Amino acid sequence: MTPVDQFLSDYRAAVLAKDANAFAALYDEEVEVFDMWGSWSMQGLPAWRRMAEEWFASLGDEMVLVDAQEVSCTETADLTLGTAILTYTARSAAGETLRSLSNRITVVLRRQRNGWCVIHEHTSAPVQHQTGKAILAYRAP
Amino acid sequence: MTPVDQFLSDYRAAVLAKDANAFAALYDEEVEVFDMWGSWSMQGLPAWRRMAEEWFASLGDEMVLVDAQEVSCTETADLTLGTAILTYTARSAAGETLRSLSNRITVVLRRQRNGWCVIHEHTSAPVQHQTGKAILAYRAP
Repeated sequence: MTPVDQFLSDYRAAVLAKDANAFAALYDEEVEVFDMWGSWSMQGLPAWRRMAEEWFASLGDEMVLVDAQEVSCTETADLTLGTAILTYTARSAAGETLRSLSNRITVVLRRQRNGWCVIHEHTSAPVQHQTGKAILAYRAP
Repeated sequence: MTPVDQFLSDYRAAVLAKDANAFAALYDEEVEVFDMWGSWSMQGLPAWRRMAEEWFASLGDEMVLVDAQEVSCTETADLTLGTAILTYTARSAAGETLRSLSNRITVVLRRQRNGWCVIHEHTSAPVQHQTGKAILAYRAP
């Protein structure tokens, strides 16, 4: 399993379990995040963990499934680059699909003593020229 | 000068000169781009070079100045990660400022025989939750 597949698998499990500790464990203390929503950048794990805690708390008894497509991994001795398209699907406690959206994700992982850790994450959706709106539905080419 | 500062300096010069060859020379043949505008991803240098040619041709006698803020560089033996906020300002031939917008940029460069080459670029603007619109004006925190 590549470091990127491992990250995506752990990320998916942490989101499904709404487990902010498992989520935060994937990231470096000094992580810099360019997140799709709201702010230009977030510096450091405390801010990023707070985002996860608020996100998971906002879900109530819903669950979010994360699916990855078009995954790429470039692994070198010290740094690994991963890219993918992620689709987030929210399900009710009864298993009903409530909503879904996609984004592009870039992650850069640094090798640490106990494995790989994300030092940078960038998520986004492409923007429509005419409307200035983000395109939130992905269709594979 | 770090590989990221070198890239930003060369990128700025290529855009100012509207020189698609100099622009394309910064990227690997197999580059994958998550661009801010229009499409989910672009694979390979021909598609990315075409974007640059169309962009530069659309400018007529305008010029675009690129300014970088919040630049970070993580350099290892084989890969370098760069992040920044870029502001693009269009000027008329008479030197008048016409418009300006900012984005976040992530670049990953790979060491080649003759220097560093971008294998992945991701540009975006954060999206407003309420409107779904991209936020195009950056103010330093």
